Amino acid sequence: MTHTREAHFCAHCGAAMIQQERYGRLRPVCSACGQVVFFDPKVAVCTLIFQDERVLLIQRAGDPKKGFWALPAGFMEWDEDPQDAARRECLEETGLIVQIDRLIDVFYTPDDGGLADIVIAYAASISGGILQAADDAETVGWFTRDSLPELAFLPSQRLLSKWAKGEI
Amino acid sequence: MTHTREAHFCAHCGAAMIQQERYGRLRPVCSACGQVVFFDPKVAVCTLIFQDERVLLIQRAGDPKKGFWALPAGFMEWDEDPQDAARRECLEETGLIVQIDRLIDVFYTPDDGGLADIVIAYAASISGGILQAADDAETVGWFTRDSLPELAFLPSQRLLSKWAKGEI
Repeated sequence: MTHTREAHFCAHCGAAMIQQERYGRLRPVCSACGQVVFFDPKVAVCTLIFQDERVLLIQRAGDPKKGFWALPAGFMEWDEDPQDAARRECLEETGLIVQIDRLIDVFYTPDDGGLADIVIAYAASISGGILQAADDAETVGWFTRDSLPELAFLPSQRLLSKWAKGEI
Repeated sequence: MTHTREAHFCAHCGAAMIQQERYGRLRPVCSACGQVVFFDPKVAVCTLIFQDERVLLIQRAGDPKKGFWALPAGFMEWDEDPQDAARRECLEETGLIVQIDRLIDVFYTPDDGGLADIVIAYAASISGGILQAADDAETVGWFTRDSLPELAFLPSQRLLSKWAKGEI
């Protein structure tokens, strides 16, 4: 695991939490109001944008994996449609307006040095905008199957490995 | 929205949270230690199990939607592979051991009276176990395309509507 989840105090009433068995495992339970904490997975989205046999990648501006390349990606808000999150992240990182074409896969890769527990991958097409790196992206670039750079994170690695083999 | 998320006290140090603009929106920030709360979506998984042109459904033992039928489903733990969560929920609710065959879809349906923000749907096949309702299931049953009962929750409704049309 790349991270753990802890709750020492109750977010509702501020009292101390204790660990108690609830629904099959130890969970933080409030010693005063009884509130049980069910931790939720951190969900990221990533987007495959292909054009003229090339894929769009961003070079990460910060850690983790600063300087490595990856698909445009980011965390979704808890109250955001994951497809909207994918569009938002593409716009923030690449300046491009995209439309989601299809769901590609869902990854569970908590051990790869990223911060997400789940990554939802979509294929998308460009419908507007002007390409320019921003936000978490230092650079953006188009890459062919035989010129892929060093990639951060397992979902990007697995998806582009499939693409390089013609499986996507 | 069917629910909101609130954090009045810091889970790390117990101090009062204040609402501050962070990363594009108001988020709870700890007045003492500065911890920012990023709420995560509640993620459920559901499973389509087909056999002899019939689909396996469970009748819900409790609210929400008590008495309605649905696909075997439930919340994933934050540190659980969603495919493992789907297998676990099938075993808990139907007594069946299943293997996941493929990802079908990801739904964002926060307004349908369920408790999940995102639902990941898989197709699965039975590999063992003995069919018997338990846990959240009052009854389990096999249904043909033209005998579907009243269904709880949009993901079950949409998936079985597609199946009834031969699109899955």
